[in-house]
Amino acid sequence: MSGTPALEPLPPGIRTAGDYEAHARARLQAQAWAYFDGAAGRGLTRGANRAAWDALSLWPRMLRAAPTVDLSTTLLGRTWPSPLLVAPMALQRLAHADGELATALAAAMQGAGMVLSLQTSVAAATVADAVRAEPARGPLWFQLSLLQDRGATLEQVRRAEAAGYEALVLTVDATLRAPRPLALPLQVGAVELPHPPVFHPAPSWDDVAWLRAQARLPLLLKGVLHPGDAREASRLGVAGLIISNHGGRILDGAVATATALPAVADAVGNELVLLVDGGLSSGTDVLKALALGARAVLLGRPVLWGLACAGAAGAAHVLRLIRDELALAAAQCGLRSIATATAELIHPTSV
Amino acid sequence: MSGTPALEPLPPGIRTAGDYEAHARARLQAQAWAYFDGAAGRGLTRGANRAAWDALSLWPRMLRAAPTVDLSTTLLGRTWPSPLLVAPMALQRLAHADGELATALAAAMQGAGMVLSLQTSVAAATVADAVRAEPARGPLWFQLSLLQDRGATLEQVRRAEAAGYEALVLTVDATLRAPRPLALPLQVGAVELPHPPVFHPAPSWDDVAWLRAQARLPLLLKGVLHPGDAREASRLGVAGLIISNHGGRILDGAVATATALPAVADAVGNELVLLVDGGLSSGTDVLKALALGARAVLLGRPVLWGLACAGAAGAAHVLRLIRDELALAAAQCGLRSIATATAELIHPTSV
Amino acid sequence: MSGTPALEPLPPGIRTAGDYEAHARARLQAQAWAYFDGAAGRGLTRGANRAAWDALSLWPRMLRAAPTVDLSTTLLGRTWPSPLLVAPMALQRLAHADGELATALAAAMQGAGMVLSLQTSVAAATVADAVRAEPARGPLWFQLSLLQDRGATLEQVRRAEAAGYEALVLTVDATLRAPRPLALPLQVGAVELPHPPVFHPAPSWDDVAWLRAQARLPLLLKGVLHPGDAREASRLGVAGLIISNHGGRILDGAVATATALPAVADAVGNELVLLVDGGLSSGTDVLKALALGARAVLLGRPVLWGLACAGAAGAAHVLRLIRDELALAAAQCGLRSIATATAELIHPTSV
Amino acid sequence: MSGTPALEPLPPGIRTAGDYEAHARARLQAQAWAYFDGAAGRGLTRGANRAAWDALSLWPRMLRAAPTVDLSTTLLGRTWPSPLLVAPMALQRLAHADGELATALAAAMQGAGMVLSLQTSVAAATVADAVRAEPARGPLWFQLSLLQDRGATLEQVRRAEAAGYEALVLTVDATLRAPRPLALPLQVGAVELPHPPVFHPAPSWDDVAWLRAQARLPLLLKGVLHPGDAREASRLGVAGLIISNHGGRILDGAVATATALPAVADAVGNELVLLVDGGLSSGTDVLKALALGARAVLLGRPVLWGLACAGAAGAAHVLRLIRDELALAAAQCGLRSIATATAELIHPTSV
Repeated sequence: MSGTPALEPLPPGIRTAGDYEAHARARLQAQAWAYFDGAAGRGLTRGANRAAWDALSLWPRMLRAAPTVDLSTTLLGRTWPSPLLVAPMALQRLAHADGELATALAAAMQGAGMVLSLQTSVAAATVADAVRAEPARGPLWFQLSLLQDRGATLEQVRRAEAAGYEALVLTVDATLRAPRPLALPLQVGAVELPHPPVFHPAPSWDDVAWLRAQARLPLLLKGVLHPGDAREASRLGVAGLIISNHGGRILDGAVATATALPAVADAVGNELVLLVDGGLSSGTDVLKALALGARAVLLGRPVLWGLACAGAAGAAHVLRLIRDELALAAAQCGLRSIATATAELIHPTSV
Repeated sequence: MSGTPALEPLPPGIRTAGDYEAHARARLQAQAWAYFDGAAGRGLTRGANRAAWDALSLWPRMLRAAPTVDLSTTLLGRTWPSPLLVAPMALQRLAHADGELATALAAAMQGAGMVLSLQTSVAAATVADAVRAEPARGPLWFQLSLLQDRGATLEQVRRAEAAGYEALVLTVDATLRAPRPLALPLQVGAVELPHPPVFHPAPSWDDVAWLRAQARLPLLLKGVLHPGDAREASRLGVAGLIISNHGGRILDGAVATATALPAVADAVGNELVLLVDGGLSSGTDVLKALALGARAVLLGRPVLWGLACAGAAGAAHVLRLIRDELALAAAQCGLRSIATATAELIHPTSV
Repeated sequence: MSGTPALEPLPPGIRTAGDYEAHARARLQAQAWAYFDGAAGRGLTRGANRAAWDALSLWPRMLRAAPTVDLSTTLLGRTWPSPLLVAPMALQRLAHADGELATALAAAMQGAGMVLSLQTSVAAATVADAVRAEPARGPLWFQLSLLQDRGATLEQVRRAEAAGYEALVLTVDATLRAPRPLALPLQVGAVELPHPPVFHPAPSWDDVAWLRAQARLPLLLKGVLHPGDAREASRLGVAGLIISNHGGRILDGAVATATALPAVADAVGNELVLLVDGGLSSGTDVLKALALGARAVLLGRPVLWGLACAGAAGAAHVLRLIRDELALAAAQCGLRSIATATAELIHPTSV
Repeated sequence: MSGTPALEPLPPGIRTAGDYEAHARARLQAQAWAYFDGAAGRGLTRGANRAAWDALSLWPRMLRAAPTVDLSTTLLGRTWPSPLLVAPMALQRLAHADGELATALAAAMQGAGMVLSLQTSVAAATVADAVRAEPARGPLWFQLSLLQDRGATLEQVRRAEAAGYEALVLTVDATLRAPRPLALPLQVGAVELPHPPVFHPAPSWDDVAWLRAQARLPLLLKGVLHPGDAREASRLGVAGLIISNHGGRILDGAVATATALPAVADAVGNELVLLVDGGLSSGTDVLKALALGARAVLLGRPVLWGLACAGAAGAAHVLRLIRDELALAAAQCGLRSIATATAELIHPTSV
């Protein structure tokens, strides 16, 4: 790979992904930290996300494990090395000079997927070119938002298709949000966005239907929490859903994703592939998500922490720690393949 | 408007209404702070009010929003710009020299309603005259308590009617309370109350029936929590109820209003217009209240904080912050009009 | 009354009974404080008692109150001014030189009852003589434990009968307990106990039947928590039960009395008069207890705090604060008489 | 007994087993403390174990006790003085120079059982020889793990049989775990393990069936939490189960043992003898475990704390404190024999 950033030293004494948080906070400038760490309102939903995973207990199974657990995960008809993806996060060069390029390389190194934000601070083609050929990488998806002008939206779609992205992730929960002023350093910007970007102020399900008809790539919706919305998405033939409350950054008081996930799985789990994000920071969190009906998960702030501390090496380390914890936890729960995780791991009398 | 107080500068760095609290505490004299902030007993109910709103989660809906949300609210046959009213609070000149005049102007500026306390420290007619002609204002209501002498009560009613108030809010939960000694500064007093006021020691439903028959204005009861009382009120033909525990100032241990609201809505929600107060301090709190069956809400201490910090400008800022949060949260929940909020936002499988 | 101790000054700034706690801790010698404040194990049950009352909410009723609430309480066929009694506590002269005499006078002054401990540090006859003739006093009961020798037990009974006590309270939960070493000052001792006392190591229901047959006074059992024990007591014809876990001093982990009370009331509430203690420190706590099926309550540590701070005056003040809070709370809940309190105050849909 | 270590002085002021914790932490080297105290991940399961016992309430019964409670416990056809056993813990010479020898002597002195870890730092025969002849001792069991080589496993089994151990405890939850590096002092090592030990990477139920067929001693499985695994164990004819999550050291997020115990008891309580460990540190904890279906309990860290502070005397003191608390609590709950404890002590309407 050309342009691979040099590997930086990791902070000492790291045992879990969560250990990176304090290091990242110490290292980032206050404004950048506030930007990535921020939550809406009083942070009720950000806290609830975390607490909801912690409140779930696992009922492990004994004497069933294989020496190694199969972490491979099928998404949209293709099988990948793990169920981990990096969540779309804007302006990653605020965290580290290598920005999204480092994150994508880290993901590829660890068999994790990359969902590039429309607000990427590194060109989408640069990111894709750096990792597309990596044989053991995960999925390479592109996140977009509906712009007011359908032509401009479609141009984003075509650029993503041309750059080799494999699916489109349409964010549906952030079209309406409180303004969060951010003074960008000169050298960091949203390089894929038209200037100034004119986001659609109130996109609708018709826009989703239009986009789905236009796009040559599979379309997932990110930000669905309500079973009714999940059913509507299923009717429109989208490929999958990412259950998300945007990490608690949009609507303070929104339900925790660990609470919404089983409700959505009940509604459309047989029809759509489901992913989830929000508050996941360990392999046991990931296993709980899989048990409740997610096929894969998106990791956000923890990857950012790693990126901020040590660029690609840090982000890769975070993904590696979580992947190893997942493999261990899955084995401890008697799984030979994570594809067999069911709610019975959490509700032992449900099956 | 004649007599409009000059706008004062706002405290720096305010993001939410709650940010005003610390500023107000720092600015008010200890006794005034204690008076407004006070709670009965150990503050169990004051704390429960707040915790009960926080414990409710919203299940937002996507891709249904209009660019702007219709906040208009119909109360007692008339449509107003928002579902926000300022709760009746006594002796507001203890918080700011402009007192209730400033609060009423702030409410009128923000399309919110004003419920003037019988214990107002500015003449009721002065307050009404200052805002009545404001075209975009909210409702202008007068709070009263039953005095021992029905003639004296009726005189209060007639004065309120004559001054242009549009409804009467009879407080029914504060006739019995622990004494709370308060040494008033010379220049602050309850200008509408006879001296000394002789409150009815034990008013009854008969008194309500009498008042309703006498009053030319619609009558609401403030302080109802129990579904049985709500049914009784409905039988007597009152116009509406304000579910309230007086901000936890009367009976420590009284149920949180967010708990009582749905029980009252179950009992009489089809018959009476319901409002609620107690612990609401953000737009998401307001949206939760509307979802559980309230048509509008009363805001108390947060408006006082704004008043204490910057007079009319501070109170208006608080109301504006909450209104904007409400509009944003409603849109994020897929509402085009807050009139369509239902319990399904909180219990997604209930509909 | 001869021998009435002089009234001492009260600590400043007292608003609730709980405010006495810090004063008492500051005033008592460490060993005495530890003795009265002590709990078994890690204090789980002592904490649970308190938390269980706090967790109950009241659903007040409006517009039903009389100007004054009838607090009179019928116990064992006789009507008393209030439902408050002082719990039997040993060796009160460790808290104040006047000991049980002061406590009994305080109770009599406030229309509350006195349950004298078998381990009283003032002679039972002295206590009874000081208050028996007080016209507005509450019940005067004597607490006893079964001694190994039935003759010795009977002698205690006869002495209590002769001194004018009106009922016997047999403690059934403290026969087995961890030793709690206590070095008594020379001038303080258990003046009614034989030296050394030989408590029955394992009393039985047969002993209760025997005692009931022997005693000329009504017999109550103190320390029952389990509905099965309550049924057994009812079969044996005892006059009443005091639901108690000994203030958390005996079995750490025992159920909170607010949890046990409704279970016992379900089992025998129509057959036996029920009282409760444990963690009650305010009038709203008392009202909750009455709503859940208690006819009266015993107050322990709070009375001790008052006694420690200001002798009879302090104990009386504590009882007065709680009585006034009870009257106020009952009125706020729409009661004209506390005898009409039902579980509907706590579970508004239960009736 | 030859080789009995001299008794060391106990720390001052100890009232409960938990009081030893701070003393042990102060006395042990940081690495040894970390080794014994450690938990997986963020310690969620270690904390949940403790909290789950605390959350259970006892409903004591009165007037049924005998002066002394029969603590005798039948396990695998033989009756022992108490239901307490020392949990298998590795490398106890890291805590005290006398290591497992001291612990076993302490257990024997107190009528408690000893489960020797395969990773013992004192020879298994030495331990067994020191206590086997003690008339009032508890059971003497040997914990083992499956090694990759069945012959090596069998050699362990035969050595345990030859040394006089009375049952085999196969740990089934620790075959897969995160590495926990530990630099051993020169003089401490796992003396019974082949060097280097080659643990079976993924043992199966077939291995259990094989071991059961080979072993002349009864076989218990330690680490079962899920009712489905309990049923499988029952089908294979094991003698008993130890419900355990390894003290929260293996899978962070695993269900608390107090939660798993009744589920397992529902599934196989009539077929297999059940024991439990995890977070138990007092006699009331033990009684709750017995009430929920355990026949006996294993005590881990608390015994270690005692060992670290005062060798055999400290470990014995811990066991004695817990045994005495158990006897007292059982009597307070009206039991004449702990064998009659049922869930009715915790759910008083269940029987």
